[in-house]
Amino acid sequence: MRESRLIVALDPERGVSLEPLLPIVSAVCSEVYGLKIGLPFMVLYGIQGLRSLRRACRARVIADFKLADVAHVMVRSVEPIAEFVDAVIAHAFVGRAGALDELKAFLDSKGIDLALVVSMSHPGSSEIIDENIEKTLAVAEALKPWGLVAPATRPAMIRVARSRLPAARILSPGIGAQGARPGDALRAGADYEIVGRSIWGSRDPLEAVRFINLEHERALRGELE
Amino acid sequence: MRESRLIVALDPERGVSLEPLLPIVSAVCSEVYGLKIGLPFMVLYGIQGLRSLRRACRARVIADFKLADVAHVMVRSVEPIAEFVDAVIAHAFVGRAGALDELKAFLDSKGIDLALVVSMSHPGSSEIIDENIEKTLAVAEALKPWGLVAPATRPAMIRVARSRLPAARILSPGIGAQGARPGDALRAGADYEIVGRSIWGSRDPLEAVRFINLEHERALRGELE
Repeated sequence: MRESRLIVALDPERGVSLEPLLPIVSAVCSEVYGLKIGLPFMVLYGIQGLRSLRRACRARVIADFKLADVAHVMVRSVEPIAEFVDAVIAHAFVGRAGALDELKAFLDSKGIDLALVVSMSHPGSSEIIDENIEKTLAVAEALKPWGLVAPATRPAMIRVARSRLPAARILSPGIGAQGARPGDALRAGADYEIVGRSIWGSRDPLEAVRFINLEHERALRGELE
Repeated sequence: MRESRLIVALDPERGVSLEPLLPIVSAVCSEVYGLKIGLPFMVLYGIQGLRSLRRACRARVIADFKLADVAHVMVRSVEPIAEFVDAVIAHAFVGRAGALDELKAFLDSKGIDLALVVSMSHPGSSEIIDENIEKTLAVAEALKPWGLVAPATRPAMIRVARSRLPAARILSPGIGAQGARPGDALRAGADYEIVGRSIWGSRDPLEAVRFINLEHERALRGELE
């Protein structure tokens, strides 16, 4: 089987404990490309939780804080967790000078990949963000990040990102709860699909992961949905 | 003396412990309007740290995570800390549908104020964000947040925000380390100035706070810098 194209998002709600989750997280991690955590995870479980997650998960760990701050704040947000994460997601719209330039240099020095959001999965992304995609892609062209984030819910955004930055990995959220189907983003040119709630909300998360991996195999063989 | 117009930003670096900071934080909090923490604080100290801070600080606590995600992730990021914060900062840039509309409704239900970033203090803000200020202000006009964030380093951004949303409190970063002087933003129409590194980096942070409060008094009396 080829490498999984699935990144599982883990954004727990208040009241959910980490310890009971770790066995299933560990099993899921052995069958996916990456595990993506964000502010809900950090706020609930802190660095100790991230350390436990890192031990439990053999997939790549992606810190999706949607960083969008000035340089020193972004660097100070990532520095304490640098040893536990493989990639970090930030917003392209904050620009380079005094922001992403320094973040990129810091991440490079730690061997951590950067992915830049150029479009998002919710409808409101079309209010401002998507109209600026030429500009956010120009920021990305200059920074040459490892990855871009563009949504499965609007495949046109994936296509424009793919055409402008052929070498970037495209990570695509919006599958499942947000409306797109597994494989939609890969067919549009994305490299990885990010799925969260529809996996954790299923009775058997591992089965859900395997189903999506199979759907991805079909998409990559060129089968239509 | 009138109410302080100072919001102190606390963005600690890796390796700094919270406990030894609390006495000075407590003293500072008794002389300022608010204390602003962000991801560096949450990543380093977690909810336990925020609980300790809340006990130590009688000023308003503002969680400046620069939220810029889809609705459920933003809500899940704030829900665990709702009892410890008085206000939350998010980016207007992410738009309303599926994002800020739901965040605003959630915060309203908890009695927490929302402040929306419409411009930032770093030079890179002019690359994309500032060009969209009419659109981010339109988002703000529709949402009627308690506050807006616009920088002291570009007072024109404060003025346009003030003219479009006369009732909003304007919070202004960029004073000190980033180049603007205490009072600059108040003179341009802001309600509060956010200062961080130049306070914590001074030999006597409480003295630095008092100096800025006095500079603010001068600015509010109409004295020129």
